[in-house]
Parts: sequence; structure tokens; C-alpha cells
Amino acid sequence: MNKIYRVNMKDLTCKIEEVPAAWAGLGGRGLTSTIVAAEVPPTCHPLGPNNKLVFAPGLLAGTAASQSGRMSAGAKSPLTGTIKESNAGGTSAQSFAKLGIKAMIIEGQPAEGKLYELHVNNDGVTFHDASALKGKQNFDVVDAMNAKYSPKIGVVTIGVPGEERMKAANISVKDPDQKLRSHGRGGLGAVMGSKGVKVITIDDSAGSKVEIADPEKFRAAAKVFAKAMLDHPVTGEGLPIYGTTVLINIINEAGGLPTKNFRYGTCEHHDKVSGETLHDVIAGRGGSTKHGCHPGCIIQCSQVYVDENKEYITSGFEYETIWGLGINCMIEDLDDCARIDNAMDNIGIDSIEGAVILGTAMEAGMIPWGDGKECLRVMNEEIGKATPFGRILGNGTKSVGDAYGLTRVAVVKGQAIPAYDPRTIKGIGVTYAMSTMGADHTAGYAIATNILQVGGHVDPLKKDGQVELSRNLCIATAAVDSTGMCIFVAFPALDIAECLPSLIDMINARYGINLSGDDVTELGKTIMKTEKAFNDAAGFSKADDRLPEFFEYEPLPPHNLVWDFTGEELDEFWNF
Amino acid sequence: MNKIYRVNMKDLTCKIEEVPAAWAGLGGRGLTSTIVAAEVPPTCHPLGPNNKLVFAPGLLAGTAASQSGRMSAGAKSPLTGTIKESNAGGTSAQSFAKLGIKAMIIEGQPAEGKLYELHVNNDGVTFHDASALKGKQNFDVVDAMNAKYSPKIGVVTIGVPGEERMKAANISVKDPDQKLRSHGRGGLGAVMGSKGVKVITIDDSAGSKVEIADPEKFRAAAKVFAKAMLDHPVTGEGLPIYGTTVLINIINEAGGLPTKNFRYGTCEHHDKVSGETLHDVIAGRGGSTKHGCHPGCIIQCSQVYVDENKEYITSGFEYETIWGLGINCMIEDLDDCARIDNAMDNIGIDSIEGAVILGTAMEAGMIPWGDGKECLRVMNEEIGKATPFGRILGNGTKSVGDAYGLTRVAVVKGQAIPAYDPRTIKGIGVTYAMSTMGADHTAGYAIATNILQVGGHVDPLKKDGQVELSRNLCIATAAVDSTGMCIFVAFPALDIAECLPSLIDMINARYGINLSGDDVTELGKTIMKTEKAFNDAAGFSKADDRLPEFFEYEPLPPHNLVWDFTGEELDEFWNF
Repeated sequence: MNKIYRVNMKDLTCKIEEVPAAWAGLGGRGLTSTIVAAEVPPTCHPLGPNNKLVFAPGLLAGTAASQSGRMSAGAKSPLTGTIKESNAGGTSAQSFAKLGIKAMIIEGQPAEGKLYELHVNNDGVTFHDASALKGKQNFDVVDAMNAKYSPKIGVVTIGVPGEERMKAANISVKDPDQKLRSHGRGGLGAVMGSKGVKVITIDDSAGSKVEIADPEKFRAAAKVFAKAMLDHPVTGEGLPIYGTTVLINIINEAGGLPTKNFRYGTCEHHDKVSGETLHDVIAGRGGSTKHGCHPGCIIQCSQVYVDENKEYITSGFEYETIWGLGINCMIEDLDDCARIDNAMDNIGIDSIEGAVILGTAMEAGMIPWGDGKECLRVMNEEIGKATPFGRILGNGTKSVGDAYGLTRVAVVKGQAIPAYDPRTIKGIGVTYAMSTMGADHTAGYAIATNILQVGGHVDPLKKDGQVELSRNLCIATAAVDSTGMCIFVAFPALDIAECLPSLIDMINARYGINLSGDDVTELGKTIMKTEKAFNDAAGFSKADDRLPEFFEYEPLPPHNLVWDFTGEELDEFWNF
Repeated sequence: MNKIYRVNMKDLTCKIEEVPAAWAGLGGRGLTSTIVAAEVPPTCHPLGPNNKLVFAPGLLAGTAASQSGRMSAGAKSPLTGTIKESNAGGTSAQSFAKLGIKAMIIEGQPAEGKLYELHVNNDGVTFHDASALKGKQNFDVVDAMNAKYSPKIGVVTIGVPGEERMKAANISVKDPDQKLRSHGRGGLGAVMGSKGVKVITIDDSAGSKVEIADPEKFRAAAKVFAKAMLDHPVTGEGLPIYGTTVLINIINEAGGLPTKNFRYGTCEHHDKVSGETLHDVIAGRGGSTKHGCHPGCIIQCSQVYVDENKEYITSGFEYETIWGLGINCMIEDLDDCARIDNAMDNIGIDSIEGAVILGTAMEAGMIPWGDGKECLRVMNEEIGKATPFGRILGNGTKSVGDAYGLTRVAVVKGQAIPAYDPRTIKGIGVTYAMSTMGADHTAGYAIATNILQVGGHVDPLKKDGQVELSRNLCIATAAVDSTGMCIFVAFPALDIAECLPSLIDMINARYGINLSGDDVTELGKTIMKTEKAFNDAAGFSKADDRLPEFFEYEPLPPHNLVWDFTGEELDEFWNF
């Protein structure tokens, strides 16, 4: 991984550059955020010529380390206006690693209306006219690229919302089963669309295995690391059996499951869309209850959801999406939820943002509560076809709130709040407020310690200790996001003593270096401060590090708590 | 003017309070901004229960001083997120003065969907169910209130966009001819709608003349002041004959007339919509080339525009609107422009924001360039009926840009840039960037000195002296906005030595006080700093005091200049 591909969409050129020394120790989010902070003017228009879209695999991409196959994408976000990193599974990270590409930077803009396929291989990038793909959604694009090359081709694509520069548009990546995973959050699909890039195809056939400086040490560490994954009850048992949706019943029990657009903390029909029900439905119909988002995953938290005739409906059908549709939008039929999830994959809309968008449109009276069929139609026929109503929705939860003059709009820095109510699970509320990325549960997953009692326990209902908890998790996550590891390695890392050292050992063995645990913490801090400096220069201030006002005056049943942190208390987050 | 009416829309009560000592010397913008800053949490949702809508006549309201009949409305703006003051002519300021109401503060919110008429008289405010007015536009509301009371009743109203809390909604005020003037900018109509207030009726029949502490001194000063108005070539000649639209040819000649959504600085068909043409058309058809927006106006810059059968089309048909429709949207037919202006009056949309909205929708390809008939349809059938497309438009220029992923979006702090291109008339660009209100030409009208050579001359094409010019004008304007005077008193005030002292003498004579010119300057500074402190606490930072990025990289023909101020240069504005 010793090359930077720098793609200029104005003159359709690709320069292959050496990796600057300062970037050598960085990967994933650490690298995308460093490049964006260094090269993108913080006040630029996110959809204009001065923004850049950066892809970077993690430090361990392409190795045999389990969970290491996630790719980071970064840019200034059109949804939030902040710096943004969003990582995804799929096959692209490992292909980049094989090709020795440490990062690909897409900059500039072509003439208006032009649309391209970027074809990436060992020699650089070639530019193909993609006007025939204009208006096609993701699965059609994948089929077209598979037909043009072979099913082995890597595909990174946007649907119509991305082409039309809608702020909830994601970037989709082909997974090992020809289905899609997503760089979901922050509207990076709109940035790709603004660059005139419809699809990126990756041919890694001329690539080579990544070199390991100390193969023996690497193998030993990888074994310890994999064992930790399998030994921990969450990653070794809960997630593999029930998937992420195991959380529905747990969070409902905790009274923090946002229901009917964040009106209640519990939901009567929770069991209709719980992980246990999902497991039974899939198992009963003969779908697959286990599925990895990228080669080398041993947790296999995902699944393939089929109908009663065993026909594929969707995969990568995760807790957040199921919560958003099944609980927050009150859609009780799991099949409806699955079909909407599939539609979001197909048109390329972030499924967290998308579900909260639908709930907010219900709040506005534009879709009946719980009407899954109408939601499916809205996805395909309105957002997917970029009608005026579809644009209101496709531009995000805040856009819906703005269009209909609503005050109950669950966003921070313009990004939808996910599946844990901050009034009742206060640690995650601190993460939502303070993250450099807008409301993002993965930025510092306090649910681990607030609810799952991983890494100790901090009472979710009380303010005590939450800022410190969130801060520590956010710092650790920034570092983990640089390795290319999936977020779930945090569970064993917090509880099993050997886990984190083995992760560091793998990095050291891969590069022949000698990082310590403190170095990793420092890396996390540096990444966060780099991101915050970008946001500050872009115009963000303390007033943006706050939750929506309605959480302060609307108590959430059943605990009937409000969000009661003062600004001063929250701002302690940045004291490190 | 010794009473504050405090109206609570949650429990439908009105308290009549004494004027706190700290507010005694304040009126108009000085008072609305002071109250908003004191009572509204800066980070509150502008459409939520914690925002307040404040009306305050100026310090000289109700007196015989010419030009003194403007009313200020203030709140946290849903369009900009900043503090907002927007003043209008009409009859309400003088009625409030007669009733002794120094300010009316509307706070709280009723149950969702409730709609009220507030009836204001000498005894306070009574609350009438207004559900029968739901969905009615402004002229119908005026007719209904005239029928309910008498044509003498004062009326302050919102149309459907205000009811539906759209961010470009204005608040309309009945003028002396039963037509409408507007608190146009910043979406205050949406705030009124969010309070469940459809219309305010004002019965001043039990009111009394305002008391003048020193009537003789007042009369003498008022005479000097009025003479200055009539002696100055702009207020005594240019504006009365041609109206504000006299500027079309002047600004076109200067190369600063934003054409086709800010693509060019001159427009080939400028003369089709110039002030001279407007004058000839009105005079030829038998309309009225002179008209005052409030009783006591001697400039009479407005007019009544009629069709070939002498039927009323519109009035208050001003330069900004005619520029926005005729030049920026390329609508060459003045009758079309007049009908769209009337539609904006009727549905209650700010006509500056509205015109730039239409130009931005043309930029997006949603309306053909220059298609006045389609613009009229869009106003009435889309925005006026709150369709999804209408909501995209009715929520402002930024909303259109966001919905369609545009980068050429002429807003500052979310508010549309008016009729002078900042690349070519740099002083007004500083005002757009630095105003506490978002892009607002009236906040510091540098055109006076850049183009009209009033108050000296600062070369509009060069950066030199522009920050100082804008700063001084903004400070002076903040003070003038507190008197209730119309902005055009600035022309004689800048050029005729006796003018400003006579204005101050009138205030002193009215209240029996002894303000100096320095006191007035200090008042302007204090108002601006109060407003800026609110904005800072609301989350605004230096990065918000900037023009849209495209002005920096798109040179404007014919001078081919870009906007080239550095942030540091602009930030000097606040060094006072």
C-alpha cells in the first residue's frame, strides 16, 4: 500500500503519487480525515469543485486479520457540513490493498451533466463514459458491470439519489455475494455524484498479496485476536445468532427504544421485529441467519432475509434499519421492513437516515404511521425518481423537518439520530452531541457500557460518568476506524485483556514497527482533534454540539426523563 | 407608549406590563432586538415554544414626523437562524403608538392546529377562533376583517405559507389604501404561524394622540427634517418620480445588476423593466406613480400599477422585486412581473426571497428562464397551496439549492442576496457578509456611496475603504431602524448637514431628553453588538460571515471581478 491515486475529474487524469511520510502510519478514517483536513477548504461548498472524496482501506486491509476488511470514505459532508468518514464492508478495501492503493482521492468536477465510470487497476484509473447508466439504480449498475467485466469485478456505485446530489445518498459497495454494503452516513453519495462519478470498478487481478514484515508474529497475534472475537459473549454468541437486531428487545427493556418518532422509549409490538423473531423467520424460511459483510469476517452478524418461497428480499438487514422502520415508523410487518431495506440498498439511501426520514414524514402527516407499503412506494417512486416530494425526503431528516416546519426533528448537525434514545441512555446522547460527524452511534458506542455492561457499567439514566465514557470510547473508536476493523471488535477489546494488545501486535507485525497502546490512544486523539479543527474552521461552534431542543422539554416514557446536560458539562468532552 | 402587551398563546392570556426602565429609550429594531436577546434562548428552535415574536413601533411613531411610520417585527429567524428584525410600513405602527403600546410580545404556542385572531385595542388583546380563515390568503383575510369590523381596522396577517411555517413567509400589514406592505425578510410569517396567529386586528379608536414633551421644538425640527427630504435629489426627485426602480438602469450601467441568477452584471433587456419604463407605463395607463407606504410619508417612492383597463394589478412594486423577476429571472414582461408581485403579496412571501427562489428554481431546471406565466402559477398553485414543490420553494432560496444539489445559491446565512452584485459593488458585499441579519441591503446600504455618490464616494470595484463604509452605514442604520424612520432618510442624512440633527431634535422634543449625535451612534453600536452576541450564542461564527463560494471563483462580466476579500479583512468590520 505505497501508492496514492489522485483522480482529477475536471481534466480526467489520474496521477499515481508516492505516500507522503506523514501519511505512512495512517489508514482508514485516520487517513481520510487527515487528507480532507489538509486539502479541502473547510468552508467550501460540499458539492462544489473544491471538495474531495477520499477512499482509504484500513491499516490491516488485505491481511488475514479477521474483521479487517472495511473501507473508509471521507469528504466534507453535504448532510452535516462537517468532515465525514463513513466506513463499509464489501470487497473494495481488500482489492485496494492488493493493488497497493493506500488512498484514492477524487477531486475537481467534470462539465455539468457528464457521468463517468472510473476503472481502477494496477496501472491507475481510466475514465469511461457512463451516460448509459444515468438513472439506473444500484443493482442494475452491479449487473451491468458484472456483465461488462466479470462477477469478480469490484463495484462501488451510486443510485439516482447520489446522481441527483441528495444529502441522504450513500455509496454502495459490492459484497462477497454480489449484494451491497454501504458507506451510509453523511451523504457521501451526493459528493460522488457531484464529481460526475456514477460507478467505480476495481480490477485487482494484477494485484498481489500484502507484505507482512513479521509473518510469524502476525499469525500468532491474529490467532489471539480471532479467539477473543469468538470468546466474547457479544461477538461470539449474541451477534452471530441473532445479529445486531438482538438489541430490539434489550433496548426496549431499557426503555430507550425510540418509538413513533422518538415519542416513547418502549414499543408494544417490539417482538414482531426483534432479533429473535428475525432469526426464527429466516431459519423457518430457509434463509441464512449468518453472513459476513466482507471476506475474513468471523462474527457473521449479518444475514440473508428471504420470503416464504425462499426468494431473496434483502441482506445486511441491521438493527438500526429494523428499529427505524419497525419501531420508529411503527411498521409491524417484518417483510415490509425488509422490502424497504432492499429498496434503500437499490436506490442508495442511508438506511438509518432513510428510516428516520420516513418517521419524520409521518410526523408531518405525509405518510400514515406504520404504512410499510406506502413507505416502499415512496422510496422507489418518489426518492428513487427524484420527484419534488422525493427530494424533500432524499435530502435527509432535517430537510423534511425544514420543509414541513417541524420542531420534533431528531438530528444533530443535520444527521439523523439512530436507535437509542439519549434521554434514557445518556452516554450515547453525549456521543451524538459531541461526535465530529453529527449524530453517530458508532463514533463512541456507549451502549456497550450503559446497557450491555461491556467494559464496566455506567448507569444509563444518570449523567454521572457519561462524558468521560463517551470521550474514551470516541478516542478508541477513532483509532479502531483507522485499522479497517469493524466496530464490533470493541466488545472483546473492552473486556478481554489480550484482545487490544493482539490488534496492536498485528499492526506492528504488518509494518515492522513498534506501536504501544499509548500510541494508539494518541492516534485516536489526534484524529479527533484534526476533525474538530476542520469543523471549527467550517463554522461549527459549541452551540452545534447539542441535541435538538425537544429532548429538553419532552420527557420520554416510561422513565420520563429529559435530556438535562448543560452546555458546560458537555463541553468537558473536549478536555483531553 | 408606556405599555408592553405580553401575549401568551399557550394559555391565551394577555398581560399589560409597564415598560422596564432599560427599554424606555428604545424603539423599533433597538427594542425588538433587545427583547429577543433578553428573552429568547439563542439555540431554541425558531418554530418552537421558546421563540417569541415581538412588534415594536419606532421612537417617533404616531408623531407628525415624516417617514416615521414603520413598525419593526423581531424574533429568532427560521430562515437564517439569527436574530431578525424586519420593518414595514402600513398603518400598524401609528395605531400601536395611539394605543400607547411600546411593544407586543407573542410567546408560547397553542395546541397544534389551533388558529387565532388576536384583537388588539386599548384594553389589551382578546383571542378569537380563526379556524374559518385557515387556508385563506392575505387579501381575503383583509376583506374578512374589514367586513367583521370596518375598513378602519388595522390588519396584520399571514397567508398559507405562514400558516404552513415556510421560511420565506412574510407578515403583511394593511396600508392606507387597503393593500399590503410586508415585514418581508427572514420568515417571520412562519414564526407567526408557529404561534397559531393567523391575523392581528388593531382597533385604535380608543387611542389618543402621542404626547410631545416640547411641541414647539418638535414642530421646528420636523419642518427642517421634511425640507431635507424634499431638497435631496434622491428623496426629493429620483424616488418620487421613478420610484426605487430608478436603480435598474443605474446599477446596470455600473455592471452590478445580477442577471440570470447572478451570471452577468448587465442585462440586455434592462430597459423593459426600468424605473423610467415603469413610470411611463403607469402614467400612460392612468395608475398612480406616487404612493406612500404609510401615512406621513412625503417621499412617496411607491406606486400603484394598473393594467390597460386601469384595473389594479399591484402596488409597492419595488426595485428589488422588479430586479429579481425582470432581470434575475429574465422575465421581460413588466405586467407578468407585476402579477407575480401581487401573488407574493397575496400568499405572503417575501418578494426578494421569492424572486431569488424563482431564479434558483430556474437554475435547477424546474422553471424555464423568463417564464413569467409559469412563475405566477408556481406562486399561486405550488407555494400558495403548499405542495411538495411549493414547500421546497416556499422555504427559501437555500432550500431550493439544497433540494436540487446546486452550488450557485445566492444566500448569506440562508437569506437571499438582493439586487446588487457583491463582486462589482464591493461595499454592499461587505454588508451582505457581515450583517447580523443575513444578506440584507438595507442593513448598511453601501450603494449610496459606492454608486449614488451620496455621503462621498468609495470606488465600488475596489476593496479599499469598503469595510469601513459598510461598518459606518450598518451602525447608523441600526440607530435609524430604532426611530421608525424609513431607510431613505439616510440619503439626506448623509449629505445635508441639518438633517440628522433635526431627527435627533425630534426625538429629544418628543421625550424631553437630550440625546447627542454620539449617543445615537452609540445606540447603533449597542444594537449591533446585542444582535451579534445573540448570533454567537446561537452558534454563528466567522465562517458564517462570508459570501457563497461561487462568488470567489466565478468572475462577473463585464468587469470580470470576483469576490476577493479575505476573512481577516472582513472580520475588521467588528472592530468598533
